[in-house]
Amino acid sequence: MEFLVRTENLLPPDTPDDVRESLRKGERERAMQLREAGILKRLWRVPGRNATIGLYEAADPAELHDALASLPMWKWMDITVEALATHPQEKAP
Amino acid sequence: MEFLVRTENLLPPDTPDDVRESLRKGERERAMQLREAGILKRLWRVPGRNATIGLYEAADPAELHDALASLPMWKWMDITVEALATHPQEKAP
Amino acid sequence: MEFLVRTENLLPPDTPDDVRESLRKGERERAMQLREAGILKRLWRVPGRNATIGLYEAADPAELHDALASLPMWKWMDITVEALATHPQEKAP
Amino acid sequence: MEFLVRTENLLPPDTPDDVRESLRKGERERAMQLREAGILKRLWRVPGRNATIGLYEAADPAELHDALASLPMWKWMDITVEALATHPQEKAP
Amino acid sequence: MEFLVRTENLLPPDTPDDVRESLRKGERERAMQLREAGILKRLWRVPGRNATIGLYEAADPAELHDALASLPMWKWMDITVEALATHPQEKAP
Amino acid sequence: MEFLVRTENLLPPDTPDDVRESLRKGERERAMQLREAGILKRLWRVPGRNATIGLYEAADPAELHDALASLPMWKWMDITVEALATHPQEKAP
Amino acid sequence: MEFLVRTENLLPPDTPDDVRESLRKGERERAMQLREAGILKRLWRVPGRNATIGLYEAADPAELHDALASLPMWKWMDITVEALATHPQEKAP
Amino acid sequence: MEFLVRTENLLPPDTPDDVRESLRKGERERAMQLREAGILKRLWRVPGRNATIGLYEAADPAELHDALASLPMWKWMDITVEALATHPQEKAP
Amino acid sequence: MEFLVRTENLLPPDTPDDVRESLRKGERERAMQLREAGILKRLWRVPGRNATIGLYEAADPAELHDALASLPMWKWMDITVEALATHPQEKAP
Amino acid sequence: MEFLVRTENLLPPDTPDDVRESLRKGERERAMQLREAGILKRLWRVPGRNATIGLYEAADPAELHDALASLPMWKWMDITVEALATHPQEKAP
Repeated sequence: MEFLVRTENLLPPDTPDDVRESLRKGERERAMQLREAGILKRLWRVPGRNATIGLYEAADPAELHDALASLPMWKWMDITVEALATHPQEKAP
Repeated sequence: MEFLVRTENLLPPDTPDDVRESLRKGERERAMQLREAGILKRLWRVPGRNATIGLYEAADPAELHDALASLPMWKWMDITVEALATHPQEKAP
Repeated sequence: MEFLVRTENLLPPDTPDDVRESLRKGERERAMQLREAGILKRLWRVPGRNATIGLYEAADPAELHDALASLPMWKWMDITVEALATHPQEKAP
Repeated sequence: MEFLVRTENLLPPDTPDDVRESLRKGERERAMQLREAGILKRLWRVPGRNATIGLYEAADPAELHDALASLPMWKWMDITVEALATHPQEKAP
Repeated sequence: MEFLVRTENLLPPDTPDDVRESLRKGERERAMQLREAGILKRLWRVPGRNATIGLYEAADPAELHDALASLPMWKWMDITVEALATHPQEKAP
Repeated sequence: MEFLVRTENLLPPDTPDDVRESLRKGERERAMQLREAGILKRLWRVPGRNATIGLYEAADPAELHDALASLPMWKWMDITVEALATHPQEKAP
Repeated sequence: MEFLVRTENLLPPDTPDDVRESLRKGERERAMQLREAGILKRLWRVPGRNATIGLYEAADPAELHDALASLPMWKWMDITVEALATHPQEKAP
Repeated sequence: MEFLVRTENLLPPDTPDDVRESLRKGERERAMQLREAGILKRLWRVPGRNATIGLYEAADPAELHDALASLPMWKWMDITVEALATHPQEKAP
Repeated sequence: MEFLVRTENLLPPDTPDDVRESLRKGERERAMQLREAGILKRLWRVPGRNATIGLYEAADPAELHDALASLPMWKWMDITVEALATHPQEKAP
Repeated sequence: MEFLVRTENLLPPDTPDDVRESLRKGERERAMQLREAGILKRLWRVPGRNATIGLYEAADPAELHDALASLPMWKWMDITVEALATHPQEKAP
């Protein structure tokens, strides 16, 4: 099933640059793994913010939770999740 | 998977009593069927309101949507759904 | 550019069934045209509600507005639009 | 009587791992005791968040308060409580 | 147990005066009965509004719900209920 | 005149226990004095929170402000006040 | 004591012009009486809206309520009231 | 001085087409006059909505109010106004 | 023109008493100057809070901004401003 | 395309004056470059706040994001962006 996921990154502004960069690098690597696993399908930036909107797919909310909690920035992120229902228009003829 | 479902019934106060009663009767019958199908697991009233909080179980959000949309009052109800993730504490030893 | 579009359909519950069905049919047909034109890319239902979340692509907000305003249900819909920024992770190597 | 209880855990992200782990362990133990006492009946995770939704049963709001305040994480938790009314559908012959 | 109850009366402004007066009279009579039954303990007006804040006492949320739903104006009222916990300062030798 | 007063206590979770206990003790003593002065009439806990709802009586908002600001925890409390109007039902033989 | 009072006039847009004008005239006359009685001290328009912000003075919230409820438009107005405390700076030397 | 003005047009969806068209035509004409008078400086559509964001200039809030209230759709519009302060960066060297 | 100004003082509770007292003294002095300049016309306390509601008069929003930013507490204050339109009732005969 | 951009500057009040001044200077210089590049078109202050409302123009949301993220204060700013649709009235004959 698919989920719409919003993240706001609340990492403090005074975080040292090397810590921030290291976290970002880990974040990109873990996101790449989630893409390869078919869990992260699309990712957008909310313009002007350190925030994203993502389209995820997982077997259930628990699997999605584990995927999000595996991100290195997770402790600093405010995340909201919406479960999406397939729209009848999307089902093929 | 389980869902927490809130309903607010917005049926207009000036609905004739027989229409209201007929809708309520249909609502109870359909709810009973959803219980028997294992979709509706628990139901509470929000005290003071024509509103409920329910615990539902369905294969996915689309199946849940179809169940809720099958309620005779559906057109008058404002419904919000939260997907629930199983908590590790609930998993057996 | 891509947009995340939420719609809440506020068609009154007492709308006659034939009017409702006719509007729905027109809605599906117009949506199909918007898909073919590459404007409507994905569509989901918000479970429990007469509401959708959609991923749209248009040249600019004015083109998106015209597409949404061309839907037969538009007068009854409460729509909110978010402009999405491409995330660097999505850009190819 | 039953209560729906939401918790948001606001433990600072920079809490040392051992302190966090020790608090979590205490939390699980106390939760287990509340389950055994019949106060905590069900517990879910809000996907993507360090947050839970729980179904509790207590004699009255004061007893519920004491149970929640006995959790080791209590000082860091933002908790909201809703009193639930038994729905007539749940009473039965 | 005690509850804090807010009511907003949404009776349409164009309700005929005799209907309004008849409802108000019934409301006062039922409120008086709830006072005599010890369910309605205090009642205040929210200044400037057709709204009240009340202190109620009932065995549980279901009994409170039945009391509120017995008010003649109930169908037109938007009601919110908060369960109150006895404060330790109020217990005392 | 009477006021409904909500307090949320925002004392930081890492406040040393002896400081917290000393503040609590001072709080209880000052509250007792406000009761004796007829200013604090009833006090409830919001279940699950370090928060209260209180019924106060004072000559005017300025006197109420001075009473609340005299509480040792005041600097850490987020307080909201509602002025209550006597309900006609409460007047009367 | 003084109160800050906000009103939003919700008179339906399709109210016949003569009814609207008659209500407005009555409103102005009653407002003038409240000024002469020293209850209405200042009145502003919220720019762009059929809404006002007013500074009122009354013996207590019940007297203020009666003054506001005496306005011919009262049934169509959404009113919120804030009790104001005299600021020490305003007390004369 | 400049103002940021948001309008939401709440004209009922079942307004007859000729009434709607006549109101729109009057709206465009009045808007054109406000442009020529230098009061309406820029106008945007909120994509997906029957809503606008405008940049206005007027001597004071009362003049702005009169300009907005002169629009034929005014009775059906929900309008919010923000007064803007000139930013020092905009002042010339 | 007149403005309604709300301030919430967010000075941290652990600010040393002498710093707090020095800031308060400077605040009172600057406020007195703004009164003498005719910019600050009335000031009230929001009961229970370290917050004020004030009636200000200034040539335009920029002059008001400069006046507010000149207050010694400004860096710690959360301020919201509403521009007020003169009400026709206030204009003399 | 044009965007309406709101910024709230959350730089901590206890930031040393020289750091604050250096950031402000860098902010002004970068803003000037964005003006010269045609990205920043207008800028206003929200009166009473360390906040701005700006009118920006960029090829798409990603370009706007990069422009905003290039501001030296970006890490401390809470920014919200609205995509604006050209209004038909603004298109020339």
